[in-house]
Amino acid sequence: MNTRRISDSTVRRLSGYLRYLRQLSADGRPVVSSRELADETGTTAAQVRKDLSQFGSFGQRGRGYPVTALRDVLIRILGLRRQWRVCVVGAGRLGSALLGYEDLARRGFEVVAAFEIDPAKVGRSVRGVPVLPVEELEREIDMRGVEIAILAVPDAPARQLAQRLAAAGVTGILNFTSTKIDPGPGVAVRVMDIAVELEGLSYTIVTGASAGGAGP
Amino acid sequence: MNTRRISDSTVRRLSGYLRYLRQLSADGRPVVSSRELADETGTTAAQVRKDLSQFGSFGQRGRGYPVTALRDVLIRILGLRRQWRVCVVGAGRLGSALLGYEDLARRGFEVVAAFEIDPAKVGRSVRGVPVLPVEELEREIDMRGVEIAILAVPDAPARQLAQRLAAAGVTGILNFTSTKIDPGPGVAVRVMDIAVELEGLSYTIVTGASAGGAGP
Repeated sequence: MNTRRISDSTVRRLSGYLRYLRQLSADGRPVVSSRELADETGTTAAQVRKDLSQFGSFGQRGRGYPVTALRDVLIRILGLRRQWRVCVVGAGRLGSALLGYEDLARRGFEVVAAFEIDPAKVGRSVRGVPVLPVEELEREIDMRGVEIAILAVPDAPARQLAQRLAAAGVTGILNFTSTKIDPGPGVAVRVMDIAVELEGLSYTIVTGASAGGAGP
Repeated sequence: MNTRRISDSTVRRLSGYLRYLRQLSADGRPVVSSRELADETGTTAAQVRKDLSQFGSFGQRGRGYPVTALRDVLIRILGLRRQWRVCVVGAGRLGSALLGYEDLARRGFEVVAAFEIDPAKVGRSVRGVPVLPVEELEREIDMRGVEIAILAVPDAPARQLAQRLAAAGVTGILNFTSTKIDPGPGVAVRVMDIAVELEGLSYTIVTGASAGGAGP
């Protein structure tokens, strides 16, 4: 398997293919065309073929891709053969909503704890996930083996919490705040920005660029 | 200005540049380098130059890009010279959290209504946004001139609500559910999928591909 650095855009498309391949696999479909993968994920069939050609000789011409085998390759490429241990920092409306996403565990991300500063919210359990006091963040992350944190707090404490998460040994942070965080070189960061998606919609509407159905 | 179709990945990067240019502009910075734009948005300087070269002769070699002028070009390209009228469908935890995002209005998306099926939640107002009964969706969308809908409901009613939104005249839907919606050819759709972002983190962690700071 080659180890070239795949661009962020490509990784995002691979995720989209994987999402659809999981559905097809659950439905018992043996084969899928690049055309169908493209339509389902908002790209072109040529792009699908180009993306997937990096990972071996899948998809004989005119035959399509074998669903389960391709799914398993993408699972391996994306580092999803293991279950990741995840915490949610902030158990307000957004954080609580995230604790309810059953889809995450199915896709390899097990939420094992939430952290919250408001004593009124601490001590509860949301869908089986304990809401712990943020003072115990370092100890609990260590004890529970948390690797990825979802930052769902107000903007003000975001930077400092990111530093604490990094110091506690977290290796990835998904940032829902509008604040730029900089937890240091050992920690991967991604920003979840709703306005970016809305701007994409705006572009599509204004240019009439799509016949709908683009995504994820 | 050219009118070539810009790919989804490019639009996403333009959004990232715009997000950062707005910050720089607020801070009074006159000029920014492709290197800095790249670092802030998780791409390469070469990619930044390639993306922006499509929109005219910005960025004289060695001088960097003029912040305000580039910001305004991106605002125009992305269709953000106007304010979009947005509704949130579903006023549960996630929907309520979205109603609290002050950043959206600043970035061109004014949330003017929320719709909810639970009578206990209807009639309230969350941060000034009225929570209306979903039965009145069609009438209210028409009356309030809603153009974009954010779908923040459980999976089960998502498809049918997307049809209703399309019939009511909405031209874009941001889908937070795990259900594939198909509102028809006149409606742009984007999927907001947290697992896609987590999979991106997973890839980055496993491959050690980044020194952090990638995004949005």
